[in-house]
Amino acid sequence: MSDSLKELTETVRVFVDERDWGAFQSPKNLALALCGEAGELAEQLQWLTQEQSRNPEPDRRQRIADECADVLVYLVRIADELGFDLVEAAKAKCLKNEKKYPVELVHGRLKRRDEYER
Amino acid sequence: MSDSLKELTETVRVFVDERDWGAFQSPKNLALALCGEAGELAEQLQWLTQEQSRNPEPDRRQRIADECADVLVYLVRIADELGFDLVEAAKAKCLKNEKKYPVELVHGRLKRRDEYER
Amino acid sequence: MSDSLKELTETVRVFVDERDWGAFQSPKNLALALCGEAGELAEQLQWLTQEQSRNPEPDRRQRIADECADVLVYLVRIADELGFDLVEAAKAKCLKNEKKYPVELVHGRLKRRDEYER
Amino acid sequence: MSDSLKELTETVRVFVDERDWGAFQSPKNLALALCGEAGELAEQLQWLTQEQSRNPEPDRRQRIADECADVLVYLVRIADELGFDLVEAAKAKCLKNEKKYPVELVHGRLKRRDEYER
Repeated sequence: MSDSLKELTETVRVFVDERDWGAFQSPKNLALALCGEAGELAEQLQWLTQEQSRNPEPDRRQRIADECADVLVYLVRIADELGFDLVEAAKAKCLKNEKKYPVELVHGRLKRRDEYER
Repeated sequence: MSDSLKELTETVRVFVDERDWGAFQSPKNLALALCGEAGELAEQLQWLTQEQSRNPEPDRRQRIADECADVLVYLVRIADELGFDLVEAAKAKCLKNEKKYPVELVHGRLKRRDEYER
Repeated sequence: MSDSLKELTETVRVFVDERDWGAFQSPKNLALALCGEAGELAEQLQWLTQEQSRNPEPDRRQRIADECADVLVYLVRIADELGFDLVEAAKAKCLKNEKKYPVELVHGRLKRRDEYER
Repeated sequence: MSDSLKELTETVRVFVDERDWGAFQSPKNLALALCGEAGELAEQLQWLTQEQSRNPEPDRRQRIADECADVLVYLVRIADELGFDLVEAAKAKCLKNEKKYPVELVHGRLKRRDEYER
Protein backbone atom coordinates (compact mmCIF):
# COMPACT_ATOMS: atom_id res chain seq x y z
CA MET A 1 0.00 0.00 0.00
CA SER A 2 1.38 3.38 -0.94
CA ASP A 3 1.24 6.54 1.13
CA SER A 4 -1.64 8.85 0.25
CA LEU A 5 0.19 12.12 0.85
CA LYS A 6 3.24 11.02 -1.16
CA GLU A 7 0.92 10.15 -4.02
CA LEU A 8 -0.77 13.52 -3.80
CA THR A 9 2.60 15.28 -3.79
CA GLU A 10 3.51 13.44 -6.98
CA THR A 11 0.14 14.15 -8.64
CA VAL A 12 0.35 17.85 -7.91
CA ARG A 13 3.96 18.08 -9.06
CA VAL A 14 3.05 16.52 -12.40
CA PHE A 15 0.09 18.91 -12.71
CA VAL A 16 2.41 21.89 -12.25
CA ASP A 17 5.11 20.54 -14.56
CA GLU A 18 2.67 19.81 -17.39
CA ARG A 19 1.56 23.43 -17.25
CA ASP A 20 5.12 24.78 -16.98
CA TRP A 21 4.10 26.68 -13.86
CA GLY A 22 7.31 25.99 -11.93
CA ALA A 23 8.50 29.58 -12.23
CA PHE A 24 5.48 30.74 -10.22
CA GLN A 25 5.81 28.15 -7.49
CA SER A 26 8.17 29.88 -5.12
CA PRO A 27 7.40 29.21 -1.45
CA LYS A 28 6.62 32.90 -1.15
CA ASN A 29 3.95 32.82 -3.86
CA LEU A 30 2.62 29.54 -2.54
CA ALA A 31 2.28 31.02 0.95
CA LEU A 32 0.20 33.89 -0.44
CA ALA A 33 -1.94 31.39 -2.33
CA LEU A 34 -2.33 29.32 0.83
CA CYS A 35 -3.50 32.42 2.73
CA GLY A 36 -6.03 32.93 -0.05
CA GLU A 37 -7.41 29.43 0.39
CA ALA A 38 -7.39 29.72 4.19
CA GLY A 39 -9.48 32.85 3.68
CA GLU A 40 -11.96 30.95 1.51
CA LEU A 41 -12.26 28.34 4.24
CA ALA A 42 -12.92 31.15 6.75
CA GLU A 43 -15.67 32.49 4.49
CA GLN A 44 -17.48 29.18 4.59
CA LEU A 45 -17.65 29.28 8.38
CA GLN A 46 -17.77 32.95 9.33
CA TRP A 47 -21.49 33.36 9.99
CA LEU A 48 -22.26 29.85 11.23
CA THR A 49 -22.84 29.13 14.89
CA GLN A 50 -20.48 26.67 16.55
CA GLU A 51 -23.18 24.03 16.28
CA GLN A 52 -23.86 24.72 12.62
CA SER A 53 -20.12 24.43 11.97
CA ARG A 54 -20.15 20.97 13.56
CA ASN A 55 -23.13 19.82 11.52
CA PRO A 56 -23.07 21.70 8.26
CA GLU A 57 -25.58 20.97 5.51
CA PRO A 58 -24.22 18.66 2.79
CA ASP A 59 -23.47 21.48 0.34
CA ARG A 60 -21.63 23.48 2.94
CA ARG A 61 -19.72 20.42 4.14
CA GLN A 62 -18.60 19.77 0.58
CA ARG A 63 -17.41 23.35 0.16
CA ILE A 64 -15.50 23.16 3.44
CA ALA A 65 -13.86 19.91 2.26
CA ASP A 66 -13.00 21.61 -1.05
CA GLU A 67 -11.36 24.58 0.65
CA CYS A 68 -9.40 22.29 2.98
CA ALA A 69 -8.28 20.39 -0.09
CA ASP A 70 -7.00 23.60 -1.67
CA VAL A 71 -5.03 24.47 1.47
CA LEU A 72 -3.55 20.96 1.51
CA VAL A 73 -2.46 21.22 -2.12
CA TYR A 74 -0.47 24.38 -1.39
CA LEU A 75 1.03 22.86 1.76
CA VAL A 76 2.15 19.86 -0.25
CA ARG A 77 3.65 22.14 -2.90
CA ILE A 78 5.63 24.19 -0.35
CA ALA A 79 6.99 21.03 1.26
CA ASP A 80 7.88 19.61 -2.16
CA GLU A 81 9.63 22.81 -3.28
CA LEU A 82 11.64 23.05 -0.05
CA GLY A 83 12.23 19.31 0.23
CA PHE A 84 10.87 18.57 3.67
CA ASP A 85 8.46 15.85 4.78
CA LEU A 86 5.19 17.45 5.81
CA VAL A 87 3.95 14.62 8.01
CA GLU A 88 7.32 14.19 9.71
CA ALA A 89 7.30 17.92 10.46
CA ALA A 90 3.80 17.58 11.92
CA LYS A 91 4.79 14.60 14.05
CA ALA A 92 7.82 16.46 15.39
CA LYS A 93 5.51 19.38 16.21
CA CYS A 94 3.12 17.05 18.03
CA LEU A 95 5.98 15.78 20.19
CA LYS A 96 6.91 19.36 21.07
CA ASN A 97 3.29 20.13 21.88
CA GLU A 98 3.10 17.12 24.20
CA LYS A 99 5.69 18.89 26.37
CA LYS A 100 4.44 22.41 25.82
CA TYR A 101 0.91 21.54 26.89
CA PRO A 102 1.20 18.97 29.69
CA VAL A 103 -2.12 17.31 30.44
CA GLU A 104 -2.13 18.32 34.10
CA LEU A 105 -1.74 22.02 33.24
CA VAL A 106 -4.18 22.33 30.38
CA HIS A 107 -6.90 19.72 30.94
CA GLY A 108 -10.24 21.10 29.78
CA ARG A 109 -8.87 24.58 29.07
CA LEU A 110 -7.46 25.63 25.72
CA LYS A 111 -5.45 28.85 25.58
CA ARG A 112 -2.35 30.17 23.87
CA ARG A 113 0.64 28.75 25.69
CA ASP A 114 1.65 32.06 27.27
CA GLU A 115 -1.83 32.54 28.71
CA TYR A 116 -1.89 29.68 31.20
CA GLU A 117 -1.21 30.91 34.70
CA ARG A 118 2.06 29.75 36.25
CA MET B 1 2.89 -0.01 5.56
CA SER B 2 0.40 2.34 7.12
CA ASP B 3 -0.72 5.68 5.75
CA SER B 4 1.15 8.64 7.20
CA LEU B 5 -1.78 11.06 7.19
CA LYS B 6 -4.13 8.55 8.81
CA GLU B 7 -1.55 8.01 11.54
CA LEU B 8 -1.23 11.74 12.07
CA THR B 9 -5.00 12.10 12.28
CA GLU B 10 -5.05 9.46 14.99
CA THR B 11 -2.12 11.00 16.90
CA VAL B 12 -3.69 14.44 16.93
CA ARG B 13 -7.10 13.09 17.96
CA VAL B 14 -5.53 11.32 20.96
CA PHE B 15 -3.65 14.51 21.85
CA VAL B 16 -6.92 16.46 21.90
CA ASP B 17 -8.84 13.79 23.80
CA GLU B 18 -6.20 13.44 26.50
CA ARG B 19 -6.49 17.17 27.16
CA ASP B 20 -10.30 17.17 27.01
CA TRP B 21 -10.18 19.87 24.38
CA GLY B 22 -13.00 18.46 22.25
CA ALA B 23 -15.39 21.23 23.22
CA PHE B 24 -13.09 23.80 21.60
CA GLN B 25 -12.56 21.87 18.39
CA SER B 26 -15.50 23.06 16.34
CA PRO B 27 -14.67 23.47 12.66
CA LYS B 28 -15.30 27.18 13.13
CA ASN B 29 -12.69 27.52 15.88
CA LEU B 30 -10.29 25.30 13.96
CA ALA B 31 -10.65 27.48 10.87
CA LEU B 32 -9.72 30.57 12.89
CA ALA B 33 -6.75 28.69 14.33
CA LEU B 34 -5.73 27.60 10.83
CA CYS B 35 -5.86 31.23 9.64
CA GLY B 36 -3.59 32.05 12.58
CA GLU B 37 -1.04 29.47 11.47
CA ALA B 38 -1.32 30.49 7.81
CA GLY B 39 -0.51 34.00 9.05
CA GLU B 40 2.58 32.75 10.87
CA LEU B 41 3.71 31.05 7.67
CA ALA B 42 3.20 34.34 5.82
CA GLU B 43 5.35 36.12 8.41
CA GLN B 44 8.25 33.77 7.70
CA LEU B 45 8.22 34.70 4.02
CA GLN B 46 6.95 38.27 3.85
CA TRP B 47 10.22 40.14 3.44
CA LEU B 48 12.19 37.50 1.53
CA THR B 49 12.84 37.80 -2.18
CA GLN B 50 11.48 35.05 -4.39
CA GLU B 51 14.97 33.59 -4.57
CA GLN B 52 15.49 33.71 -0.81
CA SER B 53 12.16 31.95 -0.37
CA ARG B 54 13.40 29.14 -2.64
CA ASN B 55 16.67 28.77 -0.78
CA PRO B 56 16.05 29.80 2.82
CA GLU B 57 18.75 29.49 5.45
CA PRO B 58 18.45 26.35 7.59
CA ASP B 59 16.81 28.14 10.54
CA ARG B 60 14.25 29.78 8.33
CA ARG B 61 13.58 26.56 6.45
CA GLN B 62 12.91 24.84 9.76
CA ARG B 63 10.49 27.57 10.85
CA ILE B 64 8.67 27.36 7.53
CA ALA B 65 8.37 23.58 7.96
CA ASP B 66 7.09 24.13 11.51
CA GLU B 67 4.40 26.56 10.39
CA CYS B 68 3.33 24.27 7.56
CA ALA B 69 3.10 21.48 10.14
CA ASP B 70 0.79 23.61 12.28
CA VAL B 71 -1.48 24.30 9.32
CA LEU B 72 -1.58 20.60 8.50
CA VAL B 73 -2.53 19.70 12.07
CA TYR B 74 -5.57 21.98 11.92
CA LEU B 75 -6.55 20.69 8.47
CA VAL B 76 -6.40 17.16 9.77
CA ARG B 77 -8.52 18.14 12.77
CA ILE B 78 -11.22 19.78 10.62
CA ALA B 79 -11.39 16.74 8.34
CA ASP B 80 -11.55 14.43 11.36
CA GLU B 81 -14.31 16.48 13.03
CA LEU B 82 -16.39 16.61 9.84
CA GLY B 83 -15.59 13.07 8.79
CA PHE B 84 -14.19 13.59 5.32
CA ASP B 85 -10.99 12.22 3.78
CA LEU B 86 -8.58 15.07 3.23
CA VAL B 87 -6.48 13.41 0.55
CA GLU B 88 -9.52 12.15 -1.33
CA ALA B 89 -10.90 15.69 -1.30
CA ALA B 90 -7.57 16.96 -2.67
CA LYS B 91 -7.47 14.31 -5.39
CA ALA B 92 -11.02 15.19 -6.44
CA LYS B 93 -9.99 18.86 -6.57
CA CYS B 94 -6.99 17.97 -8.73
CA LEU B 95 -9.25 16.22 -11.21
CA LYS B 96 -11.47 19.30 -11.37
CA ASN B 97 -8.41 21.48 -11.88
CA GLU B 98 -7.23 19.29 -14.76
CA LYS B 99 -10.37 20.38 -16.61
CA LYS B 100 -10.47 23.93 -15.32
CA TYR B 101 -6.91 24.64 -16.41
CA PRO B 102 -6.35 22.75 -19.68
CA VAL B 103 -2.66 22.62 -20.62
CA GLU B 104 -3.18 24.28 -23.98
CA LEU B 105 -4.86 27.32 -22.42
CA VAL B 106 -2.59 27.92 -19.46
CA HIS B 107 0.87 26.66 -20.43
CA GLY B 108 3.52 28.89 -18.88
CA ARG B 109 1.01 31.41 -17.54
CA LEU B 110 -0.57 31.22 -14.10
CA LYS B 111 -3.62 33.36 -13.41
CA ARG B 112 -6.91 33.07 -11.61
CA ARG B 113 -9.24 31.06 -13.79
CA ASP B 114 -11.44 34.02 -14.71
CA GLU B 115 -8.43 36.02 -15.86
CA TYR B 116 -7.41 33.94 -18.88
CA GLU B 117 -8.58 35.54 -22.07
CA ARG B 118 -11.25 33.64 -23.97
CA MET C 1 -9.42 69.62 12.03
CA SER C 2 -7.31 67.21 10.06
CA ASP C 3 -8.28 63.73 8.95
CA SER C 4 -7.07 60.96 11.25
CA LEU C 5 -6.39 58.39 8.54
CA LYS C 6 -4.50 60.87 6.36
CA GLU C 7 -2.33 61.72 9.36
CA LEU C 8 -1.68 58.05 10.01
CA THR C 9 -0.76 57.51 6.36
CA GLU C 10 1.78 60.31 6.65
CA THR C 11 3.19 59.05 9.97
CA VAL C 12 3.69 55.55 8.63
CA ARG C 13 5.26 56.77 5.41
CA VAL C 14 7.81 58.81 7.36
CA PHE C 15 8.52 55.78 9.58
CA VAL C 16 9.28 53.66 6.50
CA ASP C 17 11.35 56.35 4.79
CA GLU C 18 13.50 57.01 7.85
CA ARG C 19 14.41 53.32 7.92
CA ASP C 20 14.96 53.14 4.15
CA TRP C 21 12.49 50.26 3.95
CA GLY C 22 10.82 51.39 0.73
CA ALA C 23 12.38 48.55 -1.28
CA PHE C 24 10.50 46.03 0.85
CA GLN C 25 7.15 47.77 0.66
CA SER C 26 5.74 46.31 -2.52
CA PRO C 27 1.99 45.69 -2.35
CA LYS C 28 2.77 42.00 -2.66
CA ASN C 29 5.00 41.97 0.43
CA LEU C 30 2.57 44.19 2.30
CA ALA C 31 -0.30 41.79 1.52
CA LEU C 32 1.68 38.90 2.99
CA ALA C 33 2.44 41.01 6.06
CA LEU C 34 -1.25 41.93 6.34
CA CYS C 35 -2.20 38.23 6.22
CA GLY C 36 0.30 37.71 9.04
CA GLU C 37 -1.37 40.35 11.18
CA ALA C 38 -4.86 39.08 10.32
CA GLY C 39 -3.63 35.71 11.56
CA GLU C 40 -2.46 37.24 14.84
CA LEU C 41 -5.89 38.79 15.26
CA ALA C 42 -7.46 35.37 14.63
CA GLU C 43 -5.22 33.87 17.33
CA GLN C 44 -6.56 36.30 19.89
CA LEU C 45 -10.12 35.15 19.25
CA GLN C 46 -9.87 31.51 18.18
CA TRP C 47 -10.79 29.79 21.46
CA LEU C 48 -13.16 32.42 22.85
CA THR C 49 -16.90 31.93 22.86
CA GLN C 50 -18.96 34.46 20.96
CA GLU C 51 -19.86 36.08 24.25
CA GLN C 52 -16.26 36.22 25.45
CA SER C 53 -15.32 37.83 22.15
CA ARG C 54 -17.91 40.55 22.78
CA ASN C 55 -16.70 41.20 26.32
CA PRO C 56 -13.01 40.38 26.42
CA GLU C 57 -10.93 40.99 29.52
CA PRO C 58 -8.94 44.24 29.43
CA ASP C 59 -5.64 42.55 28.46
CA ARG C 60 -7.26 40.64 25.65
CA ARG C 61 -9.15 43.69 24.44
CA GLN C 62 -5.87 45.58 24.29
CA ARG C 63 -4.21 42.81 22.29
CA ILE C 64 -7.16 42.72 19.87
CA ALA C 65 -6.87 46.49 19.42
CA ASP C 66 -3.11 46.10 18.85
CA GLU C 67 -3.60 43.47 16.15
CA CYS C 68 -6.30 45.53 14.44
CA ALA C 69 -3.85 48.44 14.52
CA ASP C 70 -1.22 46.33 12.77
CA VAL C 71 -3.68 45.34 10.05
CA LEU C 72 -4.65 48.99 9.58
CA VAL C 73 -1.02 50.05 9.22
CA TYR C 74 -0.49 47.60 6.35
CA LEU C 75 -3.77 48.63 4.70
CA VAL C 76 -2.70 52.24 4.86
CA ARG C 77 0.69 51.35 3.38
CA ILE C 78 -0.83 49.43 0.45
CA ALA C 79 -3.19 52.30 -0.32
CA ASP C 80 -0.32 54.79 -0.08
CA GLU C 81 1.94 52.71 -2.35
CA LEU C 82 -0.79 52.27 -4.97
CA GLY C 83 -2.17 55.79 -4.60
CA PHE C 84 -5.80 55.13 -3.81
CA ASP C 85 -7.97 56.56 -1.04
CA LEU C 86 -8.82 53.79 1.40
CA VAL C 87 -11.91 55.40 2.87
CA GLU C 88 -13.26 56.39 -0.54
CA ALA C 89 -12.79 52.78 -1.66
CA ALA C 90 -14.68 51.61 1.43
CA LYS C 91 -17.51 54.09 0.87
CA ALA C 92 -17.85 52.97 -2.75
CA LYS C 93 -17.96 49.37 -1.53
CA CYS C 94 -20.69 50.26 0.96
CA LEU C 95 -22.80 51.74 -1.82
CA LYS C 96 -22.39 48.54 -3.84
CA ASN C 97 -23.34 46.50 -0.79
CA GLU C 98 -26.49 48.55 -0.29
CA LYS C 99 -27.67 47.18 -3.64
CA LYS C 100 -26.19 43.72 -3.28
CA TYR C 101 -27.88 43.13 0.07
CA PRO C 102 -31.30 44.82 -0.09
CA VAL C 103 -32.91 45.09 3.35
CA GLU C 104 -36.05 43.19 2.33
CA LEU C 105 -34.02 40.17 1.14
CA VAL C 106 -31.50 39.87 3.95
CA HIS C 107 -33.16 41.25 7.09
CA GLY C 108 -32.02 39.25 10.11
CA ARG C 109 -30.12 36.69 8.03
CA LEU C 110 -26.45 37.04 7.09
CA LYS C 111 -25.07 34.80 4.35
CA ARG C 112 -22.71 35.05 1.43
CA ARG C 113 -24.53 36.79 -1.39
CA ASP C 114 -24.85 33.68 -3.52
CA GLU C 115 -26.45 31.76 -0.67
CA TYR C 116 -29.70 33.69 -0.36
CA GLU C 117 -32.52 31.85 -2.02
CA ARG C 118 -34.02 33.51 -5.08
CA MET D 1 -14.33 69.04 8.28
CA SER D 2 -15.34 65.69 9.67
CA ASP D 3 -13.12 62.68 10.11
CA SER D 4 -13.35 60.17 7.28
CA LEU D 5 -12.92 57.04 9.39
CA LYS D 6 -15.51 58.17 11.96
CA GLU D 7 -17.94 58.74 9.11
CA LEU D 8 -17.23 55.30 7.69
CA THR D 9 -17.75 53.73 11.13
CA GLU D 10 -21.15 55.41 11.30
CA THR D 11 -22.12 54.43 7.76
CA VAL D 12 -21.25 50.79 8.32
CA ARG D 13 -23.04 50.67 11.68
CA VAL D 14 -26.23 51.97 10.08
CA PHE D 15 -25.86 49.42 7.27
CA VAL D 16 -25.67 46.60 9.81
CA ASP D 17 -28.52 47.94 11.95
CA GLU D 18 -30.87 48.36 9.00
CA ARG D 19 -30.36 44.69 8.15
CA ASP D 20 -30.67 43.55 11.76
CA TRP D 21 -27.31 41.82 11.46
CA GLY D 22 -26.05 42.79 14.91
CA ALA D 23 -26.39 39.25 16.26
CA PHE D 24 -23.79 38.06 13.72
CA GLN D 25 -21.31 40.84 14.39
CA SER D 26 -19.34 39.38 17.25
CA PRO D 27 -15.64 40.24 17.12
CA LYS D 28 -14.98 36.53 16.63
CA ASN D 29 -17.17 36.32 13.51
CA LEU D 30 -15.79 39.61 12.25
CA ALA D 31 -12.23 38.32 12.63
CA LEU D 32 -13.06 35.26 10.52
CA ALA D 33 -14.66 37.53 7.92
CA LEU D 34 -11.59 39.77 7.98
CA CYS D 35 -9.35 36.74 7.36
CA GLY D 36 -11.59 35.92 4.42
CA GLU D 37 -11.08 39.36 2.92
CA ALA D 38 -7.33 39.32 3.65
CA GLY D 39 -7.30 36.06 1.69
CA GLU D 40 -9.07 37.69 -1.25
CA LEU D 41 -6.45 40.44 -1.21
CA ALA D 42 -3.73 37.78 -1.23
CA GLU D 43 -5.37 36.14 -4.26
CA GLN D 44 -5.11 39.37 -6.22
CA LEU D 45 -1.36 39.50 -5.70
CA GLN D 46 -0.21 35.90 -5.42
CA TRP D 47 1.15 35.32 -8.92
CA LEU D 48 2.33 38.87 -9.67
CA THR D 49 5.98 39.79 -9.63
CA GLN D 50 7.05 42.45 -7.16
CA GLU D 51 7.16 44.92 -10.02
CA GLN D 52 3.72 43.98 -11.30
CA SER D 53 2.37 44.42 -7.77
CA ARG D 54 3.76 47.97 -7.72
CA ASN D 55 2.26 48.84 -11.10
CA PRO D 56 -0.86 46.76 -11.51
CA GLU D 57 -3.13 47.19 -14.51
CA PRO D 58 -6.17 49.40 -13.81
CA ASP D 59 -8.57 46.47 -13.35
CA ARG D 60 -6.26 44.74 -10.93
CA ARG D 61 -5.60 47.96 -9.05
CA GLN D 62 -9.33 48.44 -8.64
CA ARG D 63 -9.77 44.91 -7.31
CA ILE D 64 -6.91 45.41 -4.86
CA ALA D 65 -8.53 48.63 -3.66
CA ASP D 66 -11.87 46.79 -3.32
CA GLU D 67 -10.35 44.03 -1.21
CA CYS D 68 -8.52 46.54 0.99
CA ALA D 69 -11.85 48.31 1.43
CA ASP D 70 -13.47 45.08 2.59
CA VAL D 71 -10.71 44.51 5.14
CA LEU D 72 -11.12 48.08 6.39
CA VAL D 73 -14.87 47.65 6.82
CA TYR D 74 -14.36 44.65 9.10
CA LEU D 75 -11.63 46.44 11.06
CA VAL D 76 -13.96 49.37 11.60
CA ARG D 77 -16.73 47.00 12.73
CA ILE D 78 -14.48 45.23 15.27
CA ALA D 79 -13.32 48.54 16.70
CA ASP D 80 -16.90 49.79 16.86
CA GLU D 81 -18.16 46.62 18.57
CA LEU D 82 -15.34 46.70 21.15
CA GLY D 83 -15.37 50.45 21.55
CA PHE D 84 -11.78 51.35 20.79
CA ASP D 85 -10.40 54.01 18.47
CA LEU D 86 -8.70 52.30 15.54
CA VAL D 87 -6.46 55.19 14.54
CA GLU D 88 -5.43 55.90 18.14
CA ALA D 89 -4.50 52.22 18.47
CA ALA D 90 -2.44 52.48 15.29
CA LYS D 91 -0.70 55.64 16.45
CA ALA D 92 0.17 54.02 19.77
CA LYS D 93 1.56 51.04 17.86
CA CYS D 94 3.66 53.36 15.69
CA LEU D 95 5.18 54.91 18.81
CA LYS D 96 6.06 51.44 20.10
CA ASN D 97 7.57 50.55 16.75
CA GLU D 98 9.72 53.69 16.80
CA LYS D 99 11.47 52.20 19.84
CA LYS D 100 11.36 48.59 18.73
CA TYR D 101 13.01 49.35 15.41
CA PRO D 102 15.56 52.11 16.03
CA VAL D 103 16.82 53.64 12.80
CA GLU D 104 20.46 52.87 13.52
CA LEU D 105 19.75 49.14 13.98
CA VAL D 106 17.41 48.52 11.09
CA HIS D 107 18.31 51.02 8.36
CA GLY D 108 17.87 49.40 4.94
CA ARG D 109 17.11 45.96 6.39
CA LEU D 110 13.61 44.73 7.23
CA LYS D 111 13.28 41.63 9.39
CA ARG D 112 11.12 40.38 12.19
CA ARG D 113 12.28 42.08 15.38
CA ASP D 114 13.83 38.92 16.84
CA GLU D 115 15.90 38.37 13.73
CA TYR D 116 18.20 41.36 13.94
CA GLU D 117 21.58 40.40 15.30
CA ARG D 118 22.44 41.77 18.71
